Amino acid sequence: MATELSDLYRRYIDCLNNQDWDSLAYYVNTEVAYNGEVVGLDAYRQAREREFREIPDLHFEVSILVSDHNTVASRLKFDISPSGEFLGLPVNGKRVSFSENVFYEYKNDKIVRVWSVLDKTAIETQLFLR
Amino acid sequence: MATELSDLYRRYIDCLNNQDWDSLAYYVNTEVAYNGEVVGLDAYRQAREREFREIPDLHFEVSILVSDHNTVASRLKFDISPSGEFLGLPVNGKRVSFSENVFYEYKNDKIVRVWSVLDKTAIETQLFLR
Repeated sequence: MATELSDLYRRYIDCLNNQDWDSLAYYVNTEVAYNGEVVGLDAYRQAREREFREIPDLHFEVSILVSDHNTVASRLKFDISPSGEFLGLPVNGKRVSFSENVFYEYKNDKIVRVWSVLDKTAIETQLFLR
Repeated sequence: MATELSDLYRRYIDCLNNQDWDSLAYYVNTEVAYNGEVVGLDAYRQAREREFREIPDLHFEVSILVSDHNTVASRLKFDISPSGEFLGLPVNGKRVSFSENVFYEYKNDKIVRVWSVLDKTAIETQLFLR
């Protein structure tokens, strides 16, 4: 059971990396919530598409993965070059490395709630802002 | 097995909330690393003690917990009033609510590696800095 959810999650990550947007509904519930706010599948997809436009070399890499029967916890590693501002920081094409620690609650094998925290402090340090 | 590790982790959180520093070695490896840097148990304890001095109402509350045979993933909820600067932000006693998404790798039932990300953006929003 736990193995199945982690496999399903890895396929979701592949779906993002392949920008296979038409398959996103296979992994994400139509009523998906992001950090406590119901955004819905369409807006969720648009947000991910926008990220790929604003970060041309965007790639999701799972570095730690833990799951149980209805929750996946993932530490995602990024090594990317956002073209403009990112999290309100003037990255402007510089390559930055940081992690995202994120929880996904599943319902009927689809992601229904995402609780994400990005390591903004790591980026600030690399931009010499701290 | 997974249940045991989550129980052990909850006892670690109780240990922190009770500021039972002499018991910390029961939960944390002497060579513990924090976000990729080996800090060791003594410095780890000093950092936690300092947090309780700088945040008089500090309390750790687990809101999501996932574990497998050697890793615990936890979303911790804070509702606290840091007395001065916190994460480089001028909190100065204001009450702020935010989460920490954190992974703990265990070795022989003790925490040996911590990968923590604090939701700094949430605090900035509450301080009207964004």
